[in-house]
Amino acid sequence: MYGADRIYKKVEIIGVSKISIEAAIETAVTKARASLDKLSWFEVQDIRGHIGDDGKVSEYQVVLKVAFQLKGE
Amino acid sequence: MYGADRIYKKVEIIGVSKISIEAAIETAVTKARASLDKLSWFEVQDIRGHIGDDGKVSEYQVVLKVAFQLKGE
Amino acid sequence: MYGADRIYKKVEIIGVSKISIEAAIETAVTKARASLDKLSWFEVQDIRGHIGDDGKVSEYQVVLKVAFQLKGE
Amino acid sequence: MYGADRIYKKVEIIGVSKISIEAAIETAVTKARASLDKLSWFEVQDIRGHIGDDGKVSEYQVVLKVAFQLKGE
Amino acid sequence: MYGADRIYKKVEIIGVSKISIEAAIETAVTKARASLDKLSWFEVQDIRGHIGDDGKVSEYQVVLKVAFQLKGE
Amino acid sequence: MYGADRIYKKVEIIGVSKISIEAAIETAVTKARASLDKLSWFEVQDIRGHIGDDGKVSEYQVVLKVAFQLKGE
Amino acid sequence: MYGADRIYKKVEIIGVSKISIEAAIETAVTKARASLDKLSWFEVQDIRGHIGDDGKVSEYQVVLKVAFQLKGE
Amino acid sequence: MYGADRIYKKVEIIGVSKISIEAAIETAVTKARASLDKLSWFEVQDIRGHIGDDGKVSEYQVVLKVAFQLKGE
Amino acid sequence: MYGADRIYKKVEIIGVSKISIEAAIETAVTKARASLDKLSWFEVQDIRGHIGDDGKVSEYQVVLKVAFQLKGE
Amino acid sequence: MYGADRIYKKVEIIGVSKISIEAAIETAVTKARASLDKLSWFEVQDIRGHIGDDGKVSEYQVVLKVAFQLKGE
Amino acid sequence: MYGADRIYKKVEIIGVSKISIEAAIETAVTKARASLDKLSWFEVQDIRGHIGDDGKVSEYQVVLKVAFQLKGE
Amino acid sequence: MYGADRIYKKVEIIGVSKISIEAAIETAVTKARASLDKLSWFEVQDIRGHIGDDGKVSEYQVVLKVAFQLKGE
Repeated sequence: MYGADRIYKKVEIIGVSKISIEAAIETAVTKARASLDKLSWFEVQDIRGHIGDDGKVSEYQVVLKVAFQLKGE
Repeated sequence: MYGADRIYKKVEIIGVSKISIEAAIETAVTKARASLDKLSWFEVQDIRGHIGDDGKVSEYQVVLKVAFQLKGE
Repeated sequence: MYGADRIYKKVEIIGVSKISIEAAIETAVTKARASLDKLSWFEVQDIRGHIGDDGKVSEYQVVLKVAFQLKGE
Repeated sequence: MYGADRIYKKVEIIGVSKISIEAAIETAVTKARASLDKLSWFEVQDIRGHIGDDGKVSEYQVVLKVAFQLKGE
Repeated sequence: MYGADRIYKKVEIIGVSKISIEAAIETAVTKARASLDKLSWFEVQDIRGHIGDDGKVSEYQVVLKVAFQLKGE
Repeated sequence: MYGADRIYKKVEIIGVSKISIEAAIETAVTKARASLDKLSWFEVQDIRGHIGDDGKVSEYQVVLKVAFQLKGE
Repeated sequence: MYGADRIYKKVEIIGVSKISIEAAIETAVTKARASLDKLSWFEVQDIRGHIGDDGKVSEYQVVLKVAFQLKGE
Repeated sequence: MYGADRIYKKVEIIGVSKISIEAAIETAVTKARASLDKLSWFEVQDIRGHIGDDGKVSEYQVVLKVAFQLKGE
Repeated sequence: MYGADRIYKKVEIIGVSKISIEAAIETAVTKARASLDKLSWFEVQDIRGHIGDDGKVSEYQVVLKVAFQLKGE
Repeated sequence: MYGADRIYKKVEIIGVSKISIEAAIETAVTKARASLDKLSWFEVQDIRGHIGDDGKVSEYQVVLKVAFQLKGE
Repeated sequence: MYGADRIYKKVEIIGVSKISIEAAIETAVTKARASLDKLSWFEVQDIRGHIGDDGKVSEYQVVLKVAFQLKGE
Repeated sequence: MYGADRIYKKVEIIGVSKISIEAAIETAVTKARASLDKLSWFEVQDIRGHIGDDGKVSEYQVVLKVAFQLKGE
């Protein structure tokens, strides 16, 4: 496919999971399918998280860019 | 709500106002409601502006990211 | 128009062409018209490319932000 | 005083106000006096904010570095 | 005018005001007219300030780039 | 609580663990409780690590900013 | 010449051309000769452009730093 | 050893694994031993990944710098 | 191939050409084949150039990262 | 010690000296001992300075991060 | 003087010396007096250098911003 | 030589010296000659250092990129 004129779009989303960074990425990628076209790749922008009253990490928040090919025209 | 799997989306918009930086932010946030879901927070990316023929600031242009939760799946 | 309250939206897209960087930008801008409102300007974020089996550049991939005014409300 | 050996310390704080960016800075600088030495200057790192259920900016959050001279030895 | 060959110059200046960030920008833009050609736009680079002996913000210092078209040749 | 004047402080710490990135974050957050007030959130700044004589990762070092509300005044 | 005490100055300019990125650079470098000393090198800072009503790139705007040796003293 | 004149070299590699970010780092560090001297530490530069046709993360790609001491002369 | 454990190496090179940015990239990619393994992609880091005594661009210098898969172990 | 769970803290300080950059670093590191635990390393963030009425550098100001291990819990 | 409306200008220069980084800064600051108003402070942007045929550093090149107050109006 | 097609390679090294930043650079440049081609220039990326048990700087660590022309092909 390399060499053909085409375009991709990148959208910024944040996935949240209490389990791990990978789980937050997987949450973001899976849930994004409902409103975005078939995703091709992701790029991590930021890793953050919330700390609960018990002083432990209560969730991981991973800011991603996800990319997908824009079809048509 | 912390700890629940969920995703947010961030969208980049530019608000313009001749009054102040805060007014440009408020313009962006208010007008964005027409096309975006309920917004949760904003992050200022850049502050710029136009200078009129009279040599004064004629408008403030504030580049923002606004974030909102993506519901459903 | 300077001085009027208004907002713009910026979207991140990637244009691909085997010819040149400018052709990749033109591809992105032209194809984006199918799904985005009338575009006002673009900003180049990154220039990348693929290298073919013959050791030559097989395509240029240009990451852009394109901006357009959000009407209505 | 220029030319004398001395050191300063920089601390990162976030001031919050519902009024304006300047009010958030003033809140940060004023409240920081309770736990920090006499402040000399500030540097804005980030400007963010929360958006309420009514779709308006409910508060400005300004991330600052504040600096003060470390006395004694 | 779009499409015509032309050049702009960007100059970095710092405006200072005790009132607000916007007043510091306005000071910079207004005073710069004495030594620079007709300005077209500005871009905020940094927002800083001095803190007085009373522990309050005594002035805002806004680092800007201002741009203007270079005429003739 | 949104809308009330308040300040937060951000402190930069490095958590170390031989197990995983998440374990290094958890180490940092848990151990920081001894000297810092109740933490609210963290932001990952850098992920690094040491490689042992056996050529394997011997520990993960995660540079974090942790934030907590400054009370009183 | 290496090893001799000397200074250079860098100035930020924007070249505009409807043809290509290289033409915009050449415009900037050529037109800058009217007001700046003999230029030695350039560094591209940003590549942007305007999109016309026909949805095509109507001009390339290339932000450059150009450098030249300051003589005399 | 601190205080002795010596040099290190840093090389940029990308490790890929379908399991986790840590596994991608471990892959990079382990496989790099074939062509690089004894590694001392790593620094994560970027975390990216591919998304498969099933809409799930099919692999993690971690861009690292790895460092090792250059011996002899 | 996605999903298989593997590593890539990225090397920073500068291609020079008097013709265009694309020609400088092509020069870098082509000449790098003499000392580097089969290249897969490139990323532009910086675009610079020299200005001749005639005040015109005498060459484009493009700083690239080129990447290739490290085979074996 | 590698492999043991532990945390470090990084603090931002500015050392000032009229002699040299190294002297400003040494001032910062030495004076910081009065209020900070045993320091392990430093990272230079910024190098600045003041210029006196005689047009010469009157002092170097070096912004550093210094790191030290947090003991106990 | 704090609190008074005023503006500063920042100019980017490169000082060169074969002796040391400080000597390159001092060269830049001293030679800049011929064409610029009374300088107030400097900020180091980049430190580079040339390596001679003998494989030793033949000169240090320090990129600085120097700032001075713009008087009058 | 300007205008001729050619390529350079940049390599990242860290020079260490207990004396000064310049000595660390000189160490890096001198020792790198054993494994790299004739170097043309260097660019400082980072300045760090170790602090000894006596609370003084025990060594400077300067991260550099060094560049050299790739011959042949």
